[in-house]
Amino acid sequence: MKNRAVYMTGLNKMEMRDIDVPKIKDTEVLVKLEYVGICGSDVHYLEHGAIGDFIVNGDFILGHECAGTIVEVGSLVDTLKIGDKVALEPGCTCGQCEFCKSGKYNLCPDVEFLATPPYHGSLMDYIAFPANMCFKLPDNITTKEGALVEPLAVGLHAAAQGEVKLGDSVVILGAGCIGLVTLLACKAYGATDITVVDIMQKRLDYAMKLGATRVINGREEDPVKKMNEITNGAGADIIIETAGSEITIKQSPYMVKRGGTIVLVGLAANDNIEFNFAKIMNKEATIKSVFRYRNIYPKAINAISKGIIDVSGIVTHEFNFENTEEAFQFVINNKNDVVKAVIKIN
Amino acid sequence: MKNRAVYMTGLNKMEMRDIDVPKIKDTEVLVKLEYVGICGSDVHYLEHGAIGDFIVNGDFILGHECAGTIVEVGSLVDTLKIGDKVALEPGCTCGQCEFCKSGKYNLCPDVEFLATPPYHGSLMDYIAFPANMCFKLPDNITTKEGALVEPLAVGLHAAAQGEVKLGDSVVILGAGCIGLVTLLACKAYGATDITVVDIMQKRLDYAMKLGATRVINGREEDPVKKMNEITNGAGADIIIETAGSEITIKQSPYMVKRGGTIVLVGLAANDNIEFNFAKIMNKEATIKSVFRYRNIYPKAINAISKGIIDVSGIVTHEFNFENTEEAFQFVINNKNDVVKAVIKIN
Amino acid sequence: MKNRAVYMTGLNKMEMRDIDVPKIKDTEVLVKLEYVGICGSDVHYLEHGAIGDFIVNGDFILGHECAGTIVEVGSLVDTLKIGDKVALEPGCTCGQCEFCKSGKYNLCPDVEFLATPPYHGSLMDYIAFPANMCFKLPDNITTKEGALVEPLAVGLHAAAQGEVKLGDSVVILGAGCIGLVTLLACKAYGATDITVVDIMQKRLDYAMKLGATRVINGREEDPVKKMNEITNGAGADIIIETAGSEITIKQSPYMVKRGGTIVLVGLAANDNIEFNFAKIMNKEATIKSVFRYRNIYPKAINAISKGIIDVSGIVTHEFNFENTEEAFQFVINNKNDVVKAVIKIN
Amino acid sequence: MKNRAVYMTGLNKMEMRDIDVPKIKDTEVLVKLEYVGICGSDVHYLEHGAIGDFIVNGDFILGHECAGTIVEVGSLVDTLKIGDKVALEPGCTCGQCEFCKSGKYNLCPDVEFLATPPYHGSLMDYIAFPANMCFKLPDNITTKEGALVEPLAVGLHAAAQGEVKLGDSVVILGAGCIGLVTLLACKAYGATDITVVDIMQKRLDYAMKLGATRVINGREEDPVKKMNEITNGAGADIIIETAGSEITIKQSPYMVKRGGTIVLVGLAANDNIEFNFAKIMNKEATIKSVFRYRNIYPKAINAISKGIIDVSGIVTHEFNFENTEEAFQFVINNKNDVVKAVIKIN
Repeated sequence: MKNRAVYMTGLNKMEMRDIDVPKIKDTEVLVKLEYVGICGSDVHYLEHGAIGDFIVNGDFILGHECAGTIVEVGSLVDTLKIGDKVALEPGCTCGQCEFCKSGKYNLCPDVEFLATPPYHGSLMDYIAFPANMCFKLPDNITTKEGALVEPLAVGLHAAAQGEVKLGDSVVILGAGCIGLVTLLACKAYGATDITVVDIMQKRLDYAMKLGATRVINGREEDPVKKMNEITNGAGADIIIETAGSEITIKQSPYMVKRGGTIVLVGLAANDNIEFNFAKIMNKEATIKSVFRYRNIYPKAINAISKGIIDVSGIVTHEFNFENTEEAFQFVINNKNDVVKAVIKIN
Repeated sequence: MKNRAVYMTGLNKMEMRDIDVPKIKDTEVLVKLEYVGICGSDVHYLEHGAIGDFIVNGDFILGHECAGTIVEVGSLVDTLKIGDKVALEPGCTCGQCEFCKSGKYNLCPDVEFLATPPYHGSLMDYIAFPANMCFKLPDNITTKEGALVEPLAVGLHAAAQGEVKLGDSVVILGAGCIGLVTLLACKAYGATDITVVDIMQKRLDYAMKLGATRVINGREEDPVKKMNEITNGAGADIIIETAGSEITIKQSPYMVKRGGTIVLVGLAANDNIEFNFAKIMNKEATIKSVFRYRNIYPKAINAISKGIIDVSGIVTHEFNFENTEEAFQFVINNKNDVVKAVIKIN
Repeated sequence: MKNRAVYMTGLNKMEMRDIDVPKIKDTEVLVKLEYVGICGSDVHYLEHGAIGDFIVNGDFILGHECAGTIVEVGSLVDTLKIGDKVALEPGCTCGQCEFCKSGKYNLCPDVEFLATPPYHGSLMDYIAFPANMCFKLPDNITTKEGALVEPLAVGLHAAAQGEVKLGDSVVILGAGCIGLVTLLACKAYGATDITVVDIMQKRLDYAMKLGATRVINGREEDPVKKMNEITNGAGADIIIETAGSEITIKQSPYMVKRGGTIVLVGLAANDNIEFNFAKIMNKEATIKSVFRYRNIYPKAINAISKGIIDVSGIVTHEFNFENTEEAFQFVINNKNDVVKAVIKIN
Repeated sequence: MKNRAVYMTGLNKMEMRDIDVPKIKDTEVLVKLEYVGICGSDVHYLEHGAIGDFIVNGDFILGHECAGTIVEVGSLVDTLKIGDKVALEPGCTCGQCEFCKSGKYNLCPDVEFLATPPYHGSLMDYIAFPANMCFKLPDNITTKEGALVEPLAVGLHAAAQGEVKLGDSVVILGAGCIGLVTLLACKAYGATDITVVDIMQKRLDYAMKLGATRVINGREEDPVKKMNEITNGAGADIIIETAGSEITIKQSPYMVKRGGTIVLVGLAANDNIEFNFAKIMNKEATIKSVFRYRNIYPKAINAISKGIIDVSGIVTHEFNFENTEEAFQFVINNKNDVVKAVIKIN
């Protein structure tokens, strides 16, 4: 058994190196990784060396959207066995703080999250990982789909935070990867009317293909005006902002229904955004936000397995492990075309 | 315009009579009824003259699952117009009591519910009804489907009371009409594993056709034992009891997961049922119950219109208005074969 | 019986006039008003002639915080009798729209709210009012306290929107009338640590008297810094913004705990406020807002009657009906000193 | 340092023995216990050797309601220091299963709970315990009060499960220790009308002293009839059953309001209880249950510290450690007189 990892060795520099195959603890499993997705955060670290307070220090392994097959099992593990395909939930939490104890473990201050400094990611052949964070994939799910559970979990958590339910109308602002998985999630939660807004027609075409009720190209018409037309001025039950742009965040109070909910998923680049709170208060609207996800992997895997969600449609590009650096450069140079690129760890 | 109504004139006696076309109030519409479903409660009144404290006194019009087309509109009505197809929500509530004010209008003590004494039902050609209780059907929904919105609403409320969500496992006890619409509802709310239990194979075959993950014939195997096998002793997230039998109500604590929920929908014939509350407490399970429904018609219509729910599959028998008495006798004599019979008001 | 009303006849102009004693409908009662509180909105209409889209057109009666004694009872009213003291909930809603039906009647688009154009207020001797909006005061509550139920209801709704519960820590930004009733409400809901922030020491002294755990004078120290010190950087569970100022709204994301909730109550004067949404998202915080209140009068009256809330402490000034104009001028000229002024309708 | 423990050595037999002072792990603290309360479960084990499936096997240390002072701190503990007074939450959970991850850690199948076989209890001088399960007591709380946090937590969880809120009416069936802490809890959560029912006048006197609105002696009048009188037939918002008797469990559906909630806390001795589910369904009532508690110690300690709850009033008897066996015998022989007995570990 031989292990390789791709390190980020500086801004826009990557290098594949041989590393040791890790030893597993009693409660861990050794996973032969098969697919690792490239996330916007991976790309951001590579280009900028940091996201907010998280700063890459020295050589660093990226990648946290991953799945593979178990090749070794710790002595205390009785829920998984060699040969099981698994998706890895990348954030290991303490289980004992007030956030963990109250079910909001995604807010655990001591989380160790793959590819979030100082914790390395999973762009490697073999990873040792806690068994309870490895979720078994049924036979009818591939490890490529397994690697997509992570971004899908963000969409599902966004829908859950917005309490999207059967019969709801939803507007999704932004049709990038997170916008599209949010679309899949909202459909799975029963939304009956989903409008997707973007300024790139290609992405909107994807949205239509993945089941949007309608799309609005913000370059061609004013989304606020259009939504008011469509809803006779009532607005939509839930607005989910995934673009992270100042413009779309500012639009949300004008689109939401009285008593409705806005969910913020896209990370705002600006620290300060001018926002019409009077409109929010007049409608007694609620603003929820999304920080990663919690308690969602089993749901996501069930939904894929039962055919409720077809997540494979979001993969637009696939690269071999040896071409990881090239893959990242392609993504950087083609941000608008790539919905999701995955690395095959062959 | 000529109006006819079918009266129940005694136990198991019905008679069609000419009646006046009603005059509408300013806030009402006049609806030409096209389909009226036969509900178990209609049959029960016809056979027994009463349900609990509700006693039929004198000649009485049955029927409350209905839809039709608007032929006249009150002067204050601006949300509907002549020619609109509508489904009628049969319970008109006061809007001002504490139950109405807090959103639980189905508990309003002053509700006037079609075909619940002393209020007549809708087995007639023309009915005057409050515009705000008439829900417009989109072009792609027929009035036959519209008449099915009422039983579907019960199933949807059961799923909502159980807080059925994406990824949940559900056991539905009973595969009669309400069991089957509950199955449709649970699927629409995102349940990924639905077991339906009954003792009539024919009904279980329907359940499979309508999308159950699996069925258990209680005549052939012990449902409690079987569910424990399937779930490795964990139980299912939500148990929805629709059969109303002592046996199935008693089974529910043994099938529900720790922290799970039992929803009671089927009206227990017996007043007192021996129940294992220790098991409930040991699992910290919750028991919810269902009294009709609330705030569900728009959701139901949306879900049918978008193809999320295909409710038409529950109609097994159709009769002409002239044959209403025959239709009721058929239902009474073939309870196990009839899932839902509808009367066409031609 | 003789009826008088005080009309606003122009900006900063008021005039007392004789008017007819109104005739009651079958479902109404006639109330001899005894106390009417002066609300910030009343003052705003008098000074500016409008609040947002609500524009005073012609002579207009202000006042909506009111209580009195029943002197006549409609023929269909069986829950109240002559001599009952009652507090009036000023917003009469339709009871039939989707907001009313789902329990959020405060969002009813057809609400008729006292002293909100085009509906006159209650600065008069006798008012005809729907019986179901008149809440009986037990013997141990005066009509002066009864008139305070309205502002208290805003505070209680703010606490409810924030889901303030036993053991929670709360920061209340602003110690005006609404800030102080919010303080009373949070205590009643079980908050164990309540910090009140303002820039007027006099108001902060009131807050301490009414039970704040501590106060921060924003003129003397930085509230954000101070709260971080007090909570070791963790922040408070719930931040309730009642000042409506740009500064305090902007402070809220820096004070709230991870997973915590900000409640917006104070109407922002500015339409657009620069806000740090990145901080909100990083903490997965929620922002709720308050538009009036719903389903709260019985709770509020119970809480006052049982001594859980002593609302009488917020009245700082009392005037006779004849001096209503003087009362308004006093309030306008002494905004910082007046917490709550009431008019006695003698 | 010398350590002693009291062992149950057979049915109704106890013996004090010298044992080693335990070695702490890096994440543990060593606590000098000062007070241990005697719980009904301790007494039950001593008398019967088992509770349900939990069977005492060999010599066994009882006691799980406990508090003391820290005398040693593990190397990784930075939240507590020597000299801190702490209350111990007795159930250590895995932190990693689906129940722990979703915030319902009280349902963790791998919980290690003090004095629940095979895990020994805390009737000893020194115990090693995980730091994160030791909750610091502020200066104004004694360790005697600290030992009462455990039973209080049950009452608080019962009130939380019932979603008791400001203004609610509550009936508490049973005025034993758990009934009385539930009374304290409901008051703290804002209930404004609390009726306590029992058949022992002495306990009802305690209930009145601790703040009940009224009491009903079931020996003297029919509680169902009386509650219907008091509420004009409406019933109470929440019924909390703490007696665990067949009679009281059966009464609950007749006392609960439409849409209300029954909370089951008292462990039913009988496995099967005849229950009127038709009444539950007619009212669309909910039945919740209580298994221990979760996320409550900090709330409880805050509430005691702020004077919202005075828990000291429930201690009726105090014994020295040397007299532990005598204490248990006293409790067994005076079940009706003892609300709570505590052992002082001097």
